[in-house]
Amino acid sequence: MYTLNETHDPALRSWVASANDAGADFTIQNLPFAAFRRKGSAEAFRGGVAIGDQIVDLAAVAQAGLFSGAAAEAAQAGAEERLNTLMGLGQPAWSALRLALSRGLRAGSEQQSALQACLVPQQDAEYSVPARIGDYTDFYTSVYHATNIGAQFRPDNPLLPNYKWIPIGYHGRASSVNVSGTDFRRPQGQTRPSEGSSTPNFGASQRLDIELELGIFIGCGNAQGEPIAMADATQHVFGLCLLNDWSARDIQPWEYQPLGPFLSKNFATTISPWVVTMEALAPYRTAFTRPEADPQPLPYLDTPTLWTQGAVDVQLEVLVQTQQMRDAGQAPESLITTNYRHAYWTIEQMVTHHTVNGCNLQPGDLFGSGTLSGPTLDQAGALIELTTGGKNPVTLANGESRTWLLDGDSIVLRGWCQKDGAARIGFGECEATILPARQG
Amino acid sequence: MYTLNETHDPALRSWVASANDAGADFTIQNLPFAAFRRKGSAEAFRGGVAIGDQIVDLAAVAQAGLFSGAAAEAAQAGAEERLNTLMGLGQPAWSALRLALSRGLRAGSEQQSALQACLVPQQDAEYSVPARIGDYTDFYTSVYHATNIGAQFRPDNPLLPNYKWIPIGYHGRASSVNVSGTDFRRPQGQTRPSEGSSTPNFGASQRLDIELELGIFIGCGNAQGEPIAMADATQHVFGLCLLNDWSARDIQPWEYQPLGPFLSKNFATTISPWVVTMEALAPYRTAFTRPEADPQPLPYLDTPTLWTQGAVDVQLEVLVQTQQMRDAGQAPESLITTNYRHAYWTIEQMVTHHTVNGCNLQPGDLFGSGTLSGPTLDQAGALIELTTGGKNPVTLANGESRTWLLDGDSIVLRGWCQKDGAARIGFGECEATILPARQG
Repeated sequence: MYTLNETHDPALRSWVASANDAGADFTIQNLPFAAFRRKGSAEAFRGGVAIGDQIVDLAAVAQAGLFSGAAAEAAQAGAEERLNTLMGLGQPAWSALRLALSRGLRAGSEQQSALQACLVPQQDAEYSVPARIGDYTDFYTSVYHATNIGAQFRPDNPLLPNYKWIPIGYHGRASSVNVSGTDFRRPQGQTRPSEGSSTPNFGASQRLDIELELGIFIGCGNAQGEPIAMADATQHVFGLCLLNDWSARDIQPWEYQPLGPFLSKNFATTISPWVVTMEALAPYRTAFTRPEADPQPLPYLDTPTLWTQGAVDVQLEVLVQTQQMRDAGQAPESLITTNYRHAYWTIEQMVTHHTVNGCNLQPGDLFGSGTLSGPTLDQAGALIELTTGGKNPVTLANGESRTWLLDGDSIVLRGWCQKDGAARIGFGECEATILPARQG
Repeated sequence: MYTLNETHDPALRSWVASANDAGADFTIQNLPFAAFRRKGSAEAFRGGVAIGDQIVDLAAVAQAGLFSGAAAEAAQAGAEERLNTLMGLGQPAWSALRLALSRGLRAGSEQQSALQACLVPQQDAEYSVPARIGDYTDFYTSVYHATNIGAQFRPDNPLLPNYKWIPIGYHGRASSVNVSGTDFRRPQGQTRPSEGSSTPNFGASQRLDIELELGIFIGCGNAQGEPIAMADATQHVFGLCLLNDWSARDIQPWEYQPLGPFLSKNFATTISPWVVTMEALAPYRTAFTRPEADPQPLPYLDTPTLWTQGAVDVQLEVLVQTQQMRDAGQAPESLITTNYRHAYWTIEQMVTHHTVNGCNLQPGDLFGSGTLSGPTLDQAGALIELTTGGKNPVTLANGESRTWLLDGDSIVLRGWCQKDGAARIGFGECEATILPARQG
């Protein structure tokens, strides 16, 4: 776990004025990482750090030789096309770069003019997926989501007996993880036979859904055969992003037995470009609780800091903008708000469980938290819950209604941390629009 | 599908004498690919092609400029540390390199002395996983395995209604795919609560098993959103290897609902170093059949060549060598023999189904065929079937018995194609030994 240090001081102000705005996501206490280049250019992608409405270009920082020691080494690693090397350097290097950037970007810094020359406006940038994702694992850490979904798939047995003992996870598809702004086609596939037929149907999914998740980027990995203990798990995590685990709810029930979801999920997953580091999130680590009647975690999934700082207080929101809203110039409308602190299993428990059998993690591996539904239905992280399996459509302000997503719908995820006594830090946005299914 | 050409001529002989031996795996009609270097050296890995007991070093071939045109381009790509670039070049490049190698390695070739200088003895070589595996997908294409396993997990409902319609698959772990010869530790994990308890057990797996599979390396990929049609699927596949999908049968039942197997599988997967190309396998493509009472494939999974050449006639064998056998100098003993032609779903159906929803494949992606159990119990591809869930131990020639694998057990997979009128081609071996579980 990280302790608070000078980079978290809420009194810090930046000479990049937009970083000091009320409601800014990219304050000087945040300093998240992405891979970017100038929009439409043939430049190589390279690492960047957000500050206000600007990006600190790590390739420019490295070339200018602005930092020394571990911070210089980290900036050099961050100058590569993807952040894997930086992620693999480990916590001391990440912290050194964060401290150097924090000092250089503070109001009054002697490095202002040198760093000013390394800025690229975010409005001129385009992003790639921040790391070459070796493996993507999706977890299932909201007990509310597991119960809501379970009730629809198995009404008599919503929460399986393993749920409160195992941070359930499964392998997802890395190749189809897209960065925010990458639109994708509605998937086609097999769905259950209609009543009276034994032949399955085939066609474009009619039950396209979202799943509001956080993505977790692994920093340092582990050797095959060497588990990561709970006490060491935080330092193996680089940071968090927003993640939308798009799901075809009509393909899923027909295909998922006995080996789990496959084509209902792997057509597209969208993540935000910005990765907020675990160090930036330190002020928002908060107590983890379990209902008294619930089992306590097995020893390998327990550690004293689990109970004091296991959870993360991240506020989350899902917004929709339909084609009709876009045509009318209407901004995206909020559908769902919830908070990551409701999760039943923590980031450290996911890391430790994933490796307890000796499975090796690598820098740039991605975890999904699972759909982050909260305790009440308006905090549900997916339409299948919000509409009770499609039975209760949602009505939008312009009179449109939605059970499932229609072509042209854009979904925007937002996340931020905010409380008294700490600076606000935000995740930016994770957005994508549904394109019509392929013809033929 | 490939048509037979001069490289398949069973009368061809090589000037590498060991390639002409009766029972040789690496005949001049085979020419499989691996990534190798000299054992214990600091050399870079690079691509190589097996011929008899030798390896043609593709980096040496490229440097010597022995080939021209597409074959030269392919040799240059094959000189890289992993075969991904070669795999991504596509079928015309692979075929050109195969033809050039076939001509150069034939008895009487004018290139004999030049190619002789590019040979490295296999006994001096070590191997890596042949490609950087972006994503690994494991299928479930043996209806006999699905039925045998299903009967143990769901006695009243062994074969689920989707099985005969969908080539069931799920995502596996790419990071823990090892090349043959990489030993690994017995995994630890949670297992079901003992009777009378609600708390799961935790410890080293006591039910470690094998799964006899073939691995399928993808060559050219597809763009996200663009499915691969059945008629085009063969040309997207580079070749096949042997694959052992090690499985912890006590971890699996406790964790696998509702999202599928996870830690029971992802601690280790072992593949053979040599990838036998689809072109080499052309003489062994054979008729695909379905029982008359079974449903016919949906149109997107059907094509005329499915029925004439959909299956592949690969003979498969599993051998075991216990520590006691090794100490006594006894060779591995055969446990299981079967054939890939019994599979219920074909390679092309796997490719097409995987992409029908727009999921993108990339060069070097790996599929597992699923456990290749044949129609009778002695053809079962896993101990869980062979021993009927551990109830009927197997007795070995030295009097030892096995229900599940013990520490020190080595498992060897072998595969080969052989019939009248065609040259024998073999896969070599896929081997690994179980090390004791980690203490603590």
